[in-house]
Amino acid sequence: MRTALFPGSFDPVTNGHLDVIKRASLLFDRLIVAVANNESKKALFSVREREELLRSACVEAGATNVETTTFDGLLVGAVLRFDAVAVVRGLRAVSDFEIEFQMALMNRQLEKRCETIFLMPSPEYSFVSSRMIKEIFRLGGDISSFVPQVVNASLAAKQLPPPEHA
Amino acid sequence: MRTALFPGSFDPVTNGHLDVIKRASLLFDRLIVAVANNESKKALFSVREREELLRSACVEAGATNVETTTFDGLLVGAVLRFDAVAVVRGLRAVSDFEIEFQMALMNRQLEKRCETIFLMPSPEYSFVSSRMIKEIFRLGGDISSFVPQVVNASLAAKQLPPPEHA
Amino acid sequence: MRTALFPGSFDPVTNGHLDVIKRASLLFDRLIVAVANNESKKALFSVREREELLRSACVEAGATNVETTTFDGLLVGAVLRFDAVAVVRGLRAVSDFEIEFQMALMNRQLEKRCETIFLMPSPEYSFVSSRMIKEIFRLGGDISSFVPQVVNASLAAKQLPPPEHA
Amino acid sequence: MRTALFPGSFDPVTNGHLDVIKRASLLFDRLIVAVANNESKKALFSVREREELLRSACVEAGATNVETTTFDGLLVGAVLRFDAVAVVRGLRAVSDFEIEFQMALMNRQLEKRCETIFLMPSPEYSFVSSRMIKEIFRLGGDISSFVPQVVNASLAAKQLPPPEHA
Amino acid sequence: MRTALFPGSFDPVTNGHLDVIKRASLLFDRLIVAVANNESKKALFSVREREELLRSACVEAGATNVETTTFDGLLVGAVLRFDAVAVVRGLRAVSDFEIEFQMALMNRQLEKRCETIFLMPSPEYSFVSSRMIKEIFRLGGDISSFVPQVVNASLAAKQLPPPEHA
Amino acid sequence: MRTALFPGSFDPVTNGHLDVIKRASLLFDRLIVAVANNESKKALFSVREREELLRSACVEAGATNVETTTFDGLLVGAVLRFDAVAVVRGLRAVSDFEIEFQMALMNRQLEKRCETIFLMPSPEYSFVSSRMIKEIFRLGGDISSFVPQVVNASLAAKQLPPPEHA
Repeated sequence: MRTALFPGSFDPVTNGHLDVIKRASLLFDRLIVAVANNESKKALFSVREREELLRSACVEAGATNVETTTFDGLLVGAVLRFDAVAVVRGLRAVSDFEIEFQMALMNRQLEKRCETIFLMPSPEYSFVSSRMIKEIFRLGGDISSFVPQVVNASLAAKQLPPPEHA
Repeated sequence: MRTALFPGSFDPVTNGHLDVIKRASLLFDRLIVAVANNESKKALFSVREREELLRSACVEAGATNVETTTFDGLLVGAVLRFDAVAVVRGLRAVSDFEIEFQMALMNRQLEKRCETIFLMPSPEYSFVSSRMIKEIFRLGGDISSFVPQVVNASLAAKQLPPPEHA
Repeated sequence: MRTALFPGSFDPVTNGHLDVIKRASLLFDRLIVAVANNESKKALFSVREREELLRSACVEAGATNVETTTFDGLLVGAVLRFDAVAVVRGLRAVSDFEIEFQMALMNRQLEKRCETIFLMPSPEYSFVSSRMIKEIFRLGGDISSFVPQVVNASLAAKQLPPPEHA
Repeated sequence: MRTALFPGSFDPVTNGHLDVIKRASLLFDRLIVAVANNESKKALFSVREREELLRSACVEAGATNVETTTFDGLLVGAVLRFDAVAVVRGLRAVSDFEIEFQMALMNRQLEKRCETIFLMPSPEYSFVSSRMIKEIFRLGGDISSFVPQVVNASLAAKQLPPPEHA
Repeated sequence: MRTALFPGSFDPVTNGHLDVIKRASLLFDRLIVAVANNESKKALFSVREREELLRSACVEAGATNVETTTFDGLLVGAVLRFDAVAVVRGLRAVSDFEIEFQMALMNRQLEKRCETIFLMPSPEYSFVSSRMIKEIFRLGGDISSFVPQVVNASLAAKQLPPPEHA
Repeated sequence: MRTALFPGSFDPVTNGHLDVIKRASLLFDRLIVAVANNESKKALFSVREREELLRSACVEAGATNVETTTFDGLLVGAVLRFDAVAVVRGLRAVSDFEIEFQMALMNRQLEKRCETIFLMPSPEYSFVSSRMIKEIFRLGGDISSFVPQVVNASLAAKQLPPPEHA
């Protein structure tokens, strides 16, 4: 049995993430989607909320061999714990490409068995990111076509914090 | 009559912005340059000051069919309010390209009529950004060749805050 | 009245080209789509055929203020002849970006009034190019979803030459 | 059982290709490395020679669940014939990225089940390409550290044609 | 005698930096490695500590014509003070490329004599950055293969602050 | 005494090349500009003509510590023959960057002492290439602002061949 790991912040999960999840789930016996518990990173949803939204979204999408979890510390630790043969990441654009490659090479250096594979989401999701969705929501825009229904409902119930200065 | 909208932070307007304004003003009957009133974004100049500098700079540059304004909320709201056929953006480099494309596609998704066109500033402005100008000014450098005269004077009268941690 | 010029090889016109044509036709009073008569470039369709396909495709697409033509020599010559305020080009990807910018700057240098604007085709066309369509057709693939109906029919009637060595 | 397909020209196979083969073979039950029989593309080695070199190199490298083959026509045909869940491609650089994405999206459009995954070769192979190796060999350089032993021997026995004009 | 200047944050110096230092030291009579004293930038090590680590690392690496220093204010000031014929920077990836070019052009504009040259570190360091090393160290990873021994020891003695929100 | 080598096709030398030559000549005691004698590459000017134009252009530009030469075979051979501490290359854009890096890494692999440094031409030359100049000249455009006077005169005396199919 082969397991793959799809790590991320998922703050919150988008339809772009779900697209990658569905594609990756066909390639391996088990896909574990893992929410990074990066306490120091200022998130809109808590790690627990993010995993719960992810789980609901995966059920909504009918992905059967997909499990969700959270992890602390280095990604390579999670890779070893779940005995994953591959780390899955989505690539949308050239800017994704470079930072993703840097991280993938670093992870391979830290742990030889940590192999990263890249998938392309559908082009219709090439411009969807958690960050942009939160910004649009904060400004009153309709984000229902970019996120699973359960996320849309949760966002509506949230009081969004002011955006980071960037 | 066709109207185009050139949105931005303009904190402060640079000679690169002015170059794009002059080029875009030749393509449409009316060009509205709109300062984003993003209250949460830490700016050096207030929205009111930024629009005032922009207006003076446009007069200084002799652009006649150009108006200035400010806007809150989503860009697509401003596009509809002014019945603009196009959003104008300057492209200087590949890194501009990707974030601009992502935003343009998102805006088109939010409002089908929101079409973005990209113009190239003159190569001599390819390295000029509001952010870099503020950094150089803070370190005591001469920025007079990168900004309109009115901005140079205003900066001299400002006490620059420490830069953001980046 | 403002005229824009959309130059290209159009060998043959694709749905991606048509998408750009429809978007650009909304921004100007008149859009002239101009087939480059580069005799030395080995094309599948003759310049005359390419213009004819383009014309039919524009009619098929219901674009009313669009005209087609051919041109020899430098693009700037055509820009002056039609008194065009802008050259229109579609940008799909970073690799497009660089060569397009190089050409646009060169054209501006050759003729100050030659201003290039860039539009984005819909993401669903981001991977469509005349070259790839010809390659797929040659290998027996179905290209009907990538080109106007009239082009599909014309390709079926053509005996494709072997691809260039590349 | 899951099968993946690694298509390419392999003219000739390099140590960079082998690195990707070894990595991909760990992710799937069976990996089929398929030489594209593009008769019209001017190759140094024949399709038969290329497959033979590939097979020897895979044996040399000790890859056990790897098979080699050749294919004509569209890649999606081979994907269906071998019932492959994934097409494997190596990504070395940003320029690879764009053309690879364009092809992957096109293939997905031609056949929904044609999913492409990207792997990174080791950085030490990031500058190795079949084309550059042939050029260096032609100029008398030592290429033994860039190709499998069997390829080095075959090249030495070949009379290289003059390079294409590029 | 020709002097070159290698400026940076060096928070802390990595093996990638050292690789560039060793390469640059062979090209000029004197290489000055200069730590930017950007007080407002939140650093892990003080400017004094950073220069000290740099000096020790250079000794460790056996670079003989290399001196270290610190500087305040604009880089062009340091260039003039040391009468440097060149500013040295390492380029690892496309994303480096663009911001580095923007800075180099700006510096040349501020001071005509400020010429920047770019060197490539060895590919094995292409994914090493001070920022990533600090992040990995904070999460408990082993960074000893990415930094000089003296830096590894100093990091072990530090209490790392939480990462910036990014 | 330190020597640097600036290799290229120089078919013909442009003002962009001259800009790099002048900048590089300030960094080293001696700069050798070397025309690659790639017989198989279809050039407009012969190697001898290209070197002659280069020499005249360097005299015209007043570069004193610059010599010209030609070379056959691998670049690393010329580097060793002239005992050059550095290979100089100009970088204009991201697309330059990748192929240049690939070549520089390959050369370093072939000969450890073969170090490549990159310089930026002035932005006003960022869109100038020998290839584009020949194309514009062939189409009847005025190229006098992009090349040294001696090249302009030589081109006028040439009958340009039809462009390569690309």
